[in-house]
Amino acid sequence: MPYEFKVERRVEFSETDMAGIMHYSNFFRFMETAEHAFYRSLGHSVVMKDVDPPLGWPRVHAECDYFKPLHFEDLVEVHMLVKEKKSKSLTYVFRFFKLNGTREEVARGALTVVCVSHVNGVMRSVTMPKDLADKIEIAPAELIG
Amino acid sequence: MPYEFKVERRVEFSETDMAGIMHYSNFFRFMETAEHAFYRSLGHSVVMKDVDPPLGWPRVHAECDYFKPLHFEDLVEVHMLVKEKKSKSLTYVFRFFKLNGTREEVARGALTVVCVSHVNGVMRSVTMPKDLADKIEIAPAELIG
Amino acid sequence: MPYEFKVERRVEFSETDMAGIMHYSNFFRFMETAEHAFYRSLGHSVVMKDVDPPLGWPRVHAECDYFKPLHFEDLVEVHMLVKEKKSKSLTYVFRFFKLNGTREEVARGALTVVCVSHVNGVMRSVTMPKDLADKIEIAPAELIG
Amino acid sequence: MPYEFKVERRVEFSETDMAGIMHYSNFFRFMETAEHAFYRSLGHSVVMKDVDPPLGWPRVHAECDYFKPLHFEDLVEVHMLVKEKKSKSLTYVFRFFKLNGTREEVARGALTVVCVSHVNGVMRSVTMPKDLADKIEIAPAELIG
Repeated sequence: MPYEFKVERRVEFSETDMAGIMHYSNFFRFMETAEHAFYRSLGHSVVMKDVDPPLGWPRVHAECDYFKPLHFEDLVEVHMLVKEKKSKSLTYVFRFFKLNGTREEVARGALTVVCVSHVNGVMRSVTMPKDLADKIEIAPAELIG
Repeated sequence: MPYEFKVERRVEFSETDMAGIMHYSNFFRFMETAEHAFYRSLGHSVVMKDVDPPLGWPRVHAECDYFKPLHFEDLVEVHMLVKEKKSKSLTYVFRFFKLNGTREEVARGALTVVCVSHVNGVMRSVTMPKDLADKIEIAPAELIG
Repeated sequence: MPYEFKVERRVEFSETDMAGIMHYSNFFRFMETAEHAFYRSLGHSVVMKDVDPPLGWPRVHAECDYFKPLHFEDLVEVHMLVKEKKSKSLTYVFRFFKLNGTREEVARGALTVVCVSHVNGVMRSVTMPKDLADKIEIAPAELIG
Repeated sequence: MPYEFKVERRVEFSETDMAGIMHYSNFFRFMETAEHAFYRSLGHSVVMKDVDPPLGWPRVHAECDYFKPLHFEDLVEVHMLVKEKKSKSLTYVFRFFKLNGTREEVARGALTVVCVSHVNGVMRSVTMPKDLADKIEIAPAELIG
């Protein structure tokens, strides 16, 4: 079922701000936590040093809609889903569920990442490796919601 | 001309990641730097304790498109522009220009924030204070680009 | 055995810097992760809203010695030990062990925190609550190393 | 006078925590801001790519004593002073002064950094470059306080 991945995190003190809630920029760090764990689950690291030239996945678009705040020590499920797969890019959707209390969706985000290679110091988008591409599927639309 | 504000920042070592570029989540921190300086330029703080009940501005939407990476010690201009003003919310656009080298737009973001009040522990969206609303204009469309 | 606590964390991409290793400031965030989990294990939160007036634990001293770098996706054990317990303050030691590869101590830190109360907006150090103090012991010296 | 450097920063919203003050880990990020600006003032970057093999400055010790909290929008002077200069390492002291209100020292920190080189993937401490070492002096003891 390689079109999704779920990780759980607990909101840390250093991730809150003076409004008493998790700072909105940290949702983007949580997204990566899920994305990178997804890659590991496929037997890869997002940092692909074992291919030559090494590949990277810079972000070209990021967004998030916030429905409810998260507080210190809240337990959060980050549910990553593959929304789009092109030859050189992937788009993920991330659904954030607060697990303490009723299981409620508190935010929804998206990331578009591009597969790039660095040749002689110049970054160029490239076709993603076939063995990785073959493992990644598009999630059913009803899961993306 | 209270529809825009510009701040300059230099990318710090702690804001880079192992890819050698500024981590994408930090663009969202830079957006706030410009937003809060804009408020100060109007004689306000984004944390409005001097009104009763105190007001806050939680983010309900954030996004960013990344065109080019930023590196350590790059000097960046964050140009904030007011795109939309409703009675209870504001939408800003943020244009990031790298100032060293040719002045080039490296990213463009947006934030939508809602004016809220906390009454008896319950957060509710409220009409923004008139004296603040009167000071904020919509930026000309050609500046937003 | 309420004189220690262990948490595991995996180094995230956003915690690395352009030197390719975890930024040194993040060790201080990891220390708190262990500290707060220790409190939860005692049935408390470090944010004590349920006592009146509410208590807090500002840090008055922090330090860390770095022996080896941590890299992206390294799995780390943060071993927190209570080194000193006074009526109004606690000193913890934190030993960082890298779990992938040989289990090796990569850093060692310490925090001193003071129990404070806010009365009429003024912060004052106070004796820590007896039920909490009774639960916390000093770790054996040989564990602190 | 190459034994000190001063930078000013304003505490940002994203640097505060739910206790309403700047999170203690951010003082370590502020220290680097001053250190790196000091290097630039000497005509260097802390990231020395122009020497072969490239040099780096990992931190081997970091500490901070906190006297008073910093709040959102506080203006802070970070005063860096060179305390020790050895052939392969430097120790700096950092004095934090809050500039709004009375000019008051709110924290004092220290960093020890080691000059390293990477040869065939192995990190080794090396003698710092003579042209850099010649520019750096030890600060008078009375300034370090």
